[in-house]
Amino acid sequence: MSFVSFVSSGPGDPELLTVKAVDRLQKADVILFDDLSSGPILSHARSDADLIGVGKRAGRPSPKQDHVSRLLVDHAKAGLNVVRLKSGDSGIFGRLEEEVTALREAGIGYEIIPGVTSASAAAAAAGIPLTRRSTARRLQFVTGHDLTGELPEGLDLNALADPGATTVVYMGKRTFAKMALRLKEAGLSGDTPTLLAESVSQPDQRLTRMPLDTLVEKLSAEQSSVPALILYGPLAEEGS
Amino acid sequence: MSFVSFVSSGPGDPELLTVKAVDRLQKADVILFDDLSSGPILSHARSDADLIGVGKRAGRPSPKQDHVSRLLVDHAKAGLNVVRLKSGDSGIFGRLEEEVTALREAGIGYEIIPGVTSASAAAAAAGIPLTRRSTARRLQFVTGHDLTGELPEGLDLNALADPGATTVVYMGKRTFAKMALRLKEAGLSGDTPTLLAESVSQPDQRLTRMPLDTLVEKLSAEQSSVPALILYGPLAEEGS
Repeated sequence: MSFVSFVSSGPGDPELLTVKAVDRLQKADVILFDDLSSGPILSHARSDADLIGVGKRAGRPSPKQDHVSRLLVDHAKAGLNVVRLKSGDSGIFGRLEEEVTALREAGIGYEIIPGVTSASAAAAAAGIPLTRRSTARRLQFVTGHDLTGELPEGLDLNALADPGATTVVYMGKRTFAKMALRLKEAGLSGDTPTLLAESVSQPDQRLTRMPLDTLVEKLSAEQSSVPALILYGPLAEEGS
Repeated sequence: MSFVSFVSSGPGDPELLTVKAVDRLQKADVILFDDLSSGPILSHARSDADLIGVGKRAGRPSPKQDHVSRLLVDHAKAGLNVVRLKSGDSGIFGRLEEEVTALREAGIGYEIIPGVTSASAAAAAAGIPLTRRSTARRLQFVTGHDLTGELPEGLDLNALADPGATTVVYMGKRTFAKMALRLKEAGLSGDTPTLLAESVSQPDQRLTRMPLDTLVEKLSAEQSSVPALILYGPLAEEGS
């Protein structure tokens, strides 16, 4: 029977895989993985499993999305036990839908194994919750880049400038200076506490707290390609 | 050394525990748990571990928050390996902060193990992602009740009525009719697709899709105490 498991790998620490994710990795004949979620996580694969990298973070051009979908369909149709490993929680900025749609159109069954999203791991590492009664009563996630790497069009800036929310920007380091300018136009203070969380849950994890304006200066001065989350709101200044 | 692990249990399915959570449960001398996260998850505890229920869902009055904090501090000071098990991801509407603050004030070390939040599990079970480029570019979580069980004050209704977001209301079943009325006043259509996800990831999980107005009627007609999430936005009508 043709079947694909979409497995969320969590933020990177192999101990933040779920029990179910480990089970699916151990059973897989083929694992299609993004570079972000590779490394120690793939050690759960069988030694004879076929590991296929389809990510875009190793300086190589990114495989086209329809190429990934075709690989999934072809391997599943060959009767293989296919795992599509996606970093974080696959439902959150994981571009899951294109691949799910391709499977549905091909009549191939699938399951989605949810995982720990990077925002949860970043907050946990910083020793803070993501919500707080009365002062951070809404939690929101946005991505800092669209398909071309630019700030997405049509962001709801009033929602994102709400000082009573915790906001997490995924993959937003490169575009955050531009975003911050718009947020300030929409009323967000330059003193808003922020947490820059780089390489969350990895051995080189780095958490840095600073006011919004300082973060913008810092990001303008350095061009690092380390994966990062930016969290802002009242809770960003607390913690261990 | 005095130490407490805040362990996120995930939505309920014991296979959605992380590897790290299982490890901490196995090592614990004492586990303080809420009713929501009990059952099969506690089977990872050692047979001689002390299991203390501090939840409020079994018809008993809820232990006061400062009582839970004192239990944590007392057990940790006795040199025991203490786990505080919290359902979902402990940082998301988990009332983590009061307990963390109590430990800090008592000079007791702690760690937070992030987990799979129920929204991720609900979407995965429904076969949908939580975000979609262009039509669901922002993901937001709110809780439907404050300390007294009422709809929280000061919700940012414009943000919550944005048709270009996926919104998940945690613990909102009882107050959703009231919330929906305000959302419609803020411009949200009564046709907005919703997903009611009850007992997410549990054996009695139930997923029901319907337009916003129909959900409000349904919730007004029945008074069920089954834990539930309400998800609304364009993605709620898709999926398996």
